[in-house]
Amino acid sequence: MPRYKLIIEYDGAPFSGWQVQADQLTIQGVLSAAIEALSGEKTLTQGAGRTDAGVHARAQVAHVDLNKDWDTDTIRDALNAHLRPHPIAVLSAERVSDDFNARTSAIRRHYLYRIINRRADLTLETGRAWRVSRPLDAAGMHAAAQRLVGKHDFTTFRSTECQAKSPVKTLDVLKVERNGEEVNVVAVARSFLHNQVRSMVGSLVVVGEGKWGAEDLSKALDARDRAACGQVAPPDGLYLMRVDY
Amino acid sequence: MPRYKLIIEYDGAPFSGWQVQADQLTIQGVLSAAIEALSGEKTLTQGAGRTDAGVHARAQVAHVDLNKDWDTDTIRDALNAHLRPHPIAVLSAERVSDDFNARTSAIRRHYLYRIINRRADLTLETGRAWRVSRPLDAAGMHAAAQRLVGKHDFTTFRSTECQAKSPVKTLDVLKVERNGEEVNVVAVARSFLHNQVRSMVGSLVVVGEGKWGAEDLSKALDARDRAACGQVAPPDGLYLMRVDY
Repeated sequence: MPRYKLIIEYDGAPFSGWQVQADQLTIQGVLSAAIEALSGEKTLTQGAGRTDAGVHARAQVAHVDLNKDWDTDTIRDALNAHLRPHPIAVLSAERVSDDFNARTSAIRRHYLYRIINRRADLTLETGRAWRVSRPLDAAGMHAAAQRLVGKHDFTTFRSTECQAKSPVKTLDVLKVERNGEEVNVVAVARSFLHNQVRSMVGSLVVVGEGKWGAEDLSKALDARDRAACGQVAPPDGLYLMRVDY
Repeated sequence: MPRYKLIIEYDGAPFSGWQVQADQLTIQGVLSAAIEALSGEKTLTQGAGRTDAGVHARAQVAHVDLNKDWDTDTIRDALNAHLRPHPIAVLSAERVSDDFNARTSAIRRHYLYRIINRRADLTLETGRAWRVSRPLDAAGMHAAAQRLVGKHDFTTFRSTECQAKSPVKTLDVLKVERNGEEVNVVAVARSFLHNQVRSMVGSLVVVGEGKWGAEDLSKALDARDRAACGQVAPPDGLYLMRVDY
């Protein structure tokens, strides 16, 4: 059976996340329906990142096995036709070998979290960013963020519903940069725990508002206790940007 | 009567444009309602650019006269509270002298037109950009665009409904730049005719697709005939970015 790698973009707002669930609109579910409409085959795509409800993707990666040897441009265009009017688009389709697995072959996942730091409500970015009205010290957030980089027990920064066996992960990059009224947080790691990026961003905002110092962030990490997390940022600002293989 | 200068951002999608019209949802109309809710005064804000239905603004400028001497941060925050849930936000309010006029004092208007050049449908940018699926030669578009820069009779590139007395305008900048799958067109002038930017962008896309050469764009300009316009780009991709005084 030929295996295909799909690169997928979506607006997460109307979906109950990536993963298929009974009676819920999910990205995986809508993709499966489009694949069935194209090929007649009932099959689930396997995704690199199980994004939560409301979380977006610029380049989610998934693989799917189909019976037929399709032209890859045909797959892309036909799936897009069947995906309408849902805000999901297949950016590209590619034939890959059977040992490629979108989830387990991934060596690095890149997330972006967009904060808009201003008093005024969002208009063009509603549902696409988190508006924080108190002035944020982005340089202070960046400095504090470096305390989370490396191999740690991230129990403080994972959802109590997280199903990963171990809370120990290695965070490669956690970068905070201001660009005008926008404050961007970039997080890169082989893999993340459930809600890890949103929990780290939420806590960094507590630092940026001046309520926590960098030392308080270290203490929260060391506590290995979910209750020590500053706050969880809303899904609106989170984007799965890229997956490396 | 104190005069206030407002900088306003909006998502143009749900509105029938800037200018107040009976029985239509307009940006000017919604702003007037918010001002009346704040101050009890029935008054119209005067805007720098009368954006069309569906056209967005990052920084529209308007002025309004009020009876009371308000704290400007209070005006901003209170208007934003009254503007909800409409996607219009007052980014700043400032006291200005009586001779400031948002429309007639403007010396330069900056527009951005966003094209996303790809086969796949838009998801996160639906209503925020124009998707063009044929590959565009952005360098060729930029070279051709220079033929429109300067003082010309822009009859070809204005709506038949344009109410300006003269079709002669001076275009200061018309720049086309590719950034990945996005092709941005920047247009700067003291003032524009009705639909001028969308008409120029639509015609430049005909050039970018290879159906017109630069010479055809010159011929269209020289024709001074609305029928010679290549096509009119949709409002979705157009943003009023800045107004200089």
